[in-house]
Amino acid sequence: MAVDSGALHVLREVSTATVTSILLKKGIRNVWMRGPKPLRAGERRIVGPAFTLRFVPMREDLATPASWASPNSTRAAVEAMPEGCVAVVDAMGVADAGIFGDILCARMKRRGAAALVTDGVVRDVTGVLSTDLPVWCAGVAAPASVAGLTFVGWQQPVGCGGVAVFPEDIVVIDDDGAVVIPAGLLDEVIDKGPKQEREETWIMKQVMNDAQLPGLYPMDAETRARYDAESGTN
Amino acid sequence: MAVDSGALHVLREVSTATVTSILLKKGIRNVWMRGPKPLRAGERRIVGPAFTLRFVPMREDLATPASWASPNSTRAAVEAMPEGCVAVVDAMGVADAGIFGDILCARMKRRGAAALVTDGVVRDVTGVLSTDLPVWCAGVAAPASVAGLTFVGWQQPVGCGGVAVFPEDIVVIDDDGAVVIPAGLLDEVIDKGPKQEREETWIMKQVMNDAQLPGLYPMDAETRARYDAESGTN
Amino acid sequence: MAVDSGALHVLREVSTATVTSILLKKGIRNVWMRGPKPLRAGERRIVGPAFTLRFVPMREDLATPASWASPNSTRAAVEAMPEGCVAVVDAMGVADAGIFGDILCARMKRRGAAALVTDGVVRDVTGVLSTDLPVWCAGVAAPASVAGLTFVGWQQPVGCGGVAVFPEDIVVIDDDGAVVIPAGLLDEVIDKGPKQEREETWIMKQVMNDAQLPGLYPMDAETRARYDAESGTN
Amino acid sequence: MAVDSGALHVLREVSTATVTSILLKKGIRNVWMRGPKPLRAGERRIVGPAFTLRFVPMREDLATPASWASPNSTRAAVEAMPEGCVAVVDAMGVADAGIFGDILCARMKRRGAAALVTDGVVRDVTGVLSTDLPVWCAGVAAPASVAGLTFVGWQQPVGCGGVAVFPEDIVVIDDDGAVVIPAGLLDEVIDKGPKQEREETWIMKQVMNDAQLPGLYPMDAETRARYDAESGTN
Amino acid sequence: MAVDSGALHVLREVSTATVTSILLKKGIRNVWMRGPKPLRAGERRIVGPAFTLRFVPMREDLATPASWASPNSTRAAVEAMPEGCVAVVDAMGVADAGIFGDILCARMKRRGAAALVTDGVVRDVTGVLSTDLPVWCAGVAAPASVAGLTFVGWQQPVGCGGVAVFPEDIVVIDDDGAVVIPAGLLDEVIDKGPKQEREETWIMKQVMNDAQLPGLYPMDAETRARYDAESGTN
Amino acid sequence: MAVDSGALHVLREVSTATVTSILLKKGIRNVWMRGPKPLRAGERRIVGPAFTLRFVPMREDLATPASWASPNSTRAAVEAMPEGCVAVVDAMGVADAGIFGDILCARMKRRGAAALVTDGVVRDVTGVLSTDLPVWCAGVAAPASVAGLTFVGWQQPVGCGGVAVFPEDIVVIDDDGAVVIPAGLLDEVIDKGPKQEREETWIMKQVMNDAQLPGLYPMDAETRARYDAESGTN
Repeated sequence: MAVDSGALHVLREVSTATVTSILLKKGIRNVWMRGPKPLRAGERRIVGPAFTLRFVPMREDLATPASWASPNSTRAAVEAMPEGCVAVVDAMGVADAGIFGDILCARMKRRGAAALVTDGVVRDVTGVLSTDLPVWCAGVAAPASVAGLTFVGWQQPVGCGGVAVFPEDIVVIDDDGAVVIPAGLLDEVIDKGPKQEREETWIMKQVMNDAQLPGLYPMDAETRARYDAESGTN
Repeated sequence: MAVDSGALHVLREVSTATVTSILLKKGIRNVWMRGPKPLRAGERRIVGPAFTLRFVPMREDLATPASWASPNSTRAAVEAMPEGCVAVVDAMGVADAGIFGDILCARMKRRGAAALVTDGVVRDVTGVLSTDLPVWCAGVAAPASVAGLTFVGWQQPVGCGGVAVFPEDIVVIDDDGAVVIPAGLLDEVIDKGPKQEREETWIMKQVMNDAQLPGLYPMDAETRARYDAESGTN
Repeated sequence: MAVDSGALHVLREVSTATVTSILLKKGIRNVWMRGPKPLRAGERRIVGPAFTLRFVPMREDLATPASWASPNSTRAAVEAMPEGCVAVVDAMGVADAGIFGDILCARMKRRGAAALVTDGVVRDVTGVLSTDLPVWCAGVAAPASVAGLTFVGWQQPVGCGGVAVFPEDIVVIDDDGAVVIPAGLLDEVIDKGPKQEREETWIMKQVMNDAQLPGLYPMDAETRARYDAESGTN
Repeated sequence: MAVDSGALHVLREVSTATVTSILLKKGIRNVWMRGPKPLRAGERRIVGPAFTLRFVPMREDLATPASWASPNSTRAAVEAMPEGCVAVVDAMGVADAGIFGDILCARMKRRGAAALVTDGVVRDVTGVLSTDLPVWCAGVAAPASVAGLTFVGWQQPVGCGGVAVFPEDIVVIDDDGAVVIPAGLLDEVIDKGPKQEREETWIMKQVMNDAQLPGLYPMDAETRARYDAESGTN
Repeated sequence: MAVDSGALHVLREVSTATVTSILLKKGIRNVWMRGPKPLRAGERRIVGPAFTLRFVPMREDLATPASWASPNSTRAAVEAMPEGCVAVVDAMGVADAGIFGDILCARMKRRGAAALVTDGVVRDVTGVLSTDLPVWCAGVAAPASVAGLTFVGWQQPVGCGGVAVFPEDIVVIDDDGAVVIPAGLLDEVIDKGPKQEREETWIMKQVMNDAQLPGLYPMDAETRARYDAESGTN
Repeated sequence: MAVDSGALHVLREVSTATVTSILLKKGIRNVWMRGPKPLRAGERRIVGPAFTLRFVPMREDLATPASWASPNSTRAAVEAMPEGCVAVVDAMGVADAGIFGDILCARMKRRGAAALVTDGVVRDVTGVLSTDLPVWCAGVAAPASVAGLTFVGWQQPVGCGGVAVFPEDIVVIDDDGAVVIPAGLLDEVIDKGPKQEREETWIMKQVMNDAQLPGLYPMDAETRARYDAESGTN
């Protein structure tokens, strides 16, 4: 699925909090990944199609530095990443083996990857930060991936932080973390997202003017009429 | 129980570390909430009576955006908060559904709530920070409360971070986290707290002058005599 | 075992990520402590022999403020620390009782301890930070150690963050956390560490010049020949 | 809400597995309590309205043997239990303090309580088993409730094993554990449950005759036609 | 890889404890799956090639009863299982959604599957037990798989209970749980396993005759000489 | 400390539930080990002085089968166990490496050890059961201890299941698990235990005669007077 750049542009104005609210009204609750947090404070919101990578647990005969030269390696996966993708790495929440270090992150940045998201951790954190690749991860650890993980492939369905992610799902990440938008619900989010953001901005203004919450948030009929009038929505 | 403002004033000079030490000497060990951390670094110490809120787990027919308009909603609870209270929210440690976002925090701030403490997480963290409401929580998540929680009421006994909190218990929060002072032990803490703070300041000065720890901390009889003489305590 | 200062000097140029890679090639995977993180951002790398301390769980008749005056106390342990040591404290991962506060950290600093590493937490964090003692810990809590732990001795084998640490093992700590170098493998790390750091610097330069990863990292024969030529290694 | 005995009678023929399937088709996924397991193998299925009890964490000044004589005690709660109820006890998953022992279970049995369900544990397990009260719990521990819990009341909404339970919800328990049927969905379960049980019995018969699964389970149109014909459902 | 039946026959005499010991001497430590336990006591040892199935987390638009009729369903996977295989199901340790119930287990049994191993749980446990399919799982839960899991495929590399399992790896299961033998190490296990079992039987006989452990287990040179003589090994 | 056999005899009539109640009234709450459960149902109560063993985490250069022949091995520890002791093994809750198998358990039984208690697991469970050594553990795993643990010594203070255990503490184990009696409180337990058991037997009889709980359990003054009269206690 190719996502047109207009859609991505609109989504950049919609917070992950708003995305989850819209999906919840459609009965979809499990889209926020548990674990990934911004490695650097103050990253701006990023949106892109998911490029998935998958690890299984370490087995000592497979998870070795030698495996890094295999055709089915993380190195090959990085070279397959298209510009603008968000790499989503299923590390099964393993927190004591860094999936990527500074060199792979630097290469991802050179290839134009938009961000790295994982329920695992990175290593060589000082170097990773210096690459300027936006990273959402569950922390930092010194050991290499092969100390705890075996890489098995890319662009397969994965679980990341308790959420199912399929290749080409849309991923939105900001200070509240990383969420997935199922392809079939993308239009819904693009349609409702900006509207909801505008409403919440207006509601906040009322709160700053000492309005009480009941009837305001969520809006009752009277408040909505006032909002429609003031905002020229209707 | 109304707490007089003098008591709150004294407690603002007593660290949570000192509060727990005094209570422990009375056999009370379980008063520090596991989970709540300051959302923003460098918050000053805050003291106030607890105003409790309680969630139970999400059930899909109850935990819906529609429930936000119910008379028994978080919105109504916020409107019931008295000035100066510390809102203590029992979210059962659920970390993947934000109990409050920027709008509720803004309203709390307008109503004069002193702080928000929870073993859960908040959402829309950028907005929450912009309200300047002091928040001690266990992290951040994009989904709304109803993605994982059902709100059931306020001013009931709650468990927050493994600690029992009753309405009107005194809550003290600083960089070390949040502690509860049982009402019956408030006088003890007010009596002993400032003394212990002064002693530790004096001990620290000795350490900076290369005094050894044994006999100094805790003070033996000789050291105490010297302390009493120097500080004019006796 | 006395570690000569030249060895420590060399190790200060070798990241914990590199240390773990070298040890992994020798079949040693479990050397990175789960839990300890730098309390203050931007600490420089620290290297030193381990000085171990050990706690067992709290029992109310033993873990009391009175125990702090015992000859077998944390205070006595601090006084036994040699200059340059890295104190490694086995707190069994207990996160709701601070092993040390500002006074003990200040004394450690005065005695010349290089750093404090623990899978537990510290208390009175503002005070601890003011002592300038480098601390790698699993967080912060207000209660004193005796609220959850009983101190039993020092310079015994311990488990810290899932890693066995023996007195006089070499500990290296940086932004990626804390790792142990078994004595028998120290020469290996000193021999291979600086080489690997130089290679990775060269590889990073190639990446910044848009080199692809396969064949580069790890180096294949052709790349290695080029590296040897350029770096004059051979 | 009074549940008529006919409804309970029907539900006794419907497994908890079937109940969850029917509710899931209505979008209700979170009704199975994590933790409670039958203390004794081979208990028959039990159905009854929930009678809830609630604990918060232990605080040493409140959770004492003396509290057992308070009017707001577990003892008083037991005396308030109506015949046929299923006691659902929110112990916050605490596994190191037994909520009830043999004496309270014996009294529950005498009062006609149908069963005890908890995400906590019981104590004096030999004695509890001798009372013949059916118990679904998360295990066994020697310490009394007050070692880890403070009792705060009964017939309030509770969370048990990650599930919201309201007084008078219908609870069904069998070898697969304990599930809650929200009142508003009781008719749905009574209507669909026995039908689904009959269908699955028929499907199992086909499997034993070596039928393949696709098309059979779930039934496609052709299979359903055959089922309707054979079972005279239509 | 086809495993000849002679190899399987030999392995049935080698305990999982012995398998892990032999692999450990080759540096392979991570082969025992955390979670799977025999559902029924007293199962005999089972050996067979792995047939893997893989789930990712539930997403409400994908994990539905309707998905059971998809060509890529658990039903289709069961129909693809060869006789004698051990089905290894990666359920990511999810304990509140049963991967299989009685009908799928019955069909597996009819198709000649040797056993079902999972780090997840089964549902309809009474029915599952009645099928006589040997099951090693992490427990029991009433909800269907789609309450918590999305099925994505079979015969891919999986992680089960923290262990990497590849299609056609050999799986051995007994009362101590389930272990994987990497294909490349099968000959080693077949060669060493029966020998080690014989030695341990002899050692046990010595212990029953009151022999002391040092020198006996492991055998020192003298003991080994005696063993060789008595057992005619040499 | 030598415990006279009369004391052990009395304690055999006092349940672990009663022991914890008596200690709790003295302010001692943390004496029940989390984890150890009877490996075989229906073991009778066992009492004996603790003989402690201690493991730290596995390090691949230390935790090897070769280490079993070291003078500081589990084998040597077993040979040091006195008759009647309860071996308490601190395995740090590691659940994927069996501390002992059938051979060491058989030797313990031959030496007259009363029981094995651990927060870890055993291996070769069929063999262990056949030795008839009473075992309280947290489960079963195939891998040997060295897959996850390094043995470091015996008769040191240890933490087992979150409880501090010192050599010669008295350990009581029954179906409710394992508890420690601090030496200084042994007389208290011997004095109060049998009395409390008699009272609870009498209370249970009243319950079977349909007495209500308030006033009965705990006894109010009137009930106690009746008890004293009936039991001739006074």
